[in-house]
Amino acid sequence: MKLGRLNHIGIATPSIADSIAHYRETMGATQITEPFDLPAQGVKVCFVDTPTGSDGSGGMNGTQIELIEPLGEDSPIHGFLAKNPAGGQHHVCFEVEDVAEARAWFEGQGKRVLGPTRIGAHGTPIFFLHPKDMMGQLTEIMETPRDH
Amino acid sequence: MKLGRLNHIGIATPSIADSIAHYRETMGATQITEPFDLPAQGVKVCFVDTPTGSDGSGGMNGTQIELIEPLGEDSPIHGFLAKNPAGGQHHVCFEVEDVAEARAWFEGQGKRVLGPTRIGAHGTPIFFLHPKDMMGQLTEIMETPRDH
Repeated sequence: MKLGRLNHIGIATPSIADSIAHYRETMGATQITEPFDLPAQGVKVCFVDTPTGSDGSGGMNGTQIELIEPLGEDSPIHGFLAKNPAGGQHHVCFEVEDVAEARAWFEGQGKRVLGPTRIGAHGTPIFFLHPKDMMGQLTEIMETPRDH
Repeated sequence: MKLGRLNHIGIATPSIADSIAHYRETMGATQITEPFDLPAQGVKVCFVDTPTGSDGSGGMNGTQIELIEPLGEDSPIHGFLAKNPAGGQHHVCFEVEDVAEARAWFEGQGKRVLGPTRIGAHGTPIFFLHPKDMMGQLTEIMETPRDH
């Protein structure tokens, strides 16, 4: 296992619209994707792009901020928001070249994988690891999109 | 205000040594700085470097993971760890070109700045913004190091 790119950090929010306004108006974000539903995961998400250049210039291929709003009554985000009503940092996501190999690696380390490998917000296979086995952090592992 | 680079995410931990072992052995990190004390902030920190290339190759100039352990009895991290004994995501840090200008911007937006501007872990001026004014996220603003 080799540490991959920090693809995104997931931020839960009670209102994706309010969060978009915050990132655009207060933080000065210029590239935010349209929100879309991921019904299988019970969430609505969008991505805030960040610059790679330290002066805010350069490409916008830095670690993204994934804004996550609950979708439906069974959304796993409701529990998080009950504890953190204003929203907050929900998970981190690292890229790997081969998601099946990574899953076998973490299972071999005795880490609890949460549910089946499934298709994530970037259209590639992902899985989540239990925060109690990951130094308190809910950790998503995603296969790198082929177009990157 | 223009969104700057996501310099690092801050992860609180009850044991920086255990977290270093986790990132090195389980996550496959290859570049982790030596921990050092920041007595003025009541923390011991180190940084895990992440790759910019999506396959784990390329430079190691991606968003860093700052590991934060309490230092001293008055450390502000004790409260966080009391609520999150395993550790977890503590703050996010964005770069700006001019920290004084950024501070004035956030104050003008009615955001609560926590304490004075001071020197942060990268040796440049930083300040923190209240999570309740930042969609639930404790947010650090740091001036970009001149050597980047």
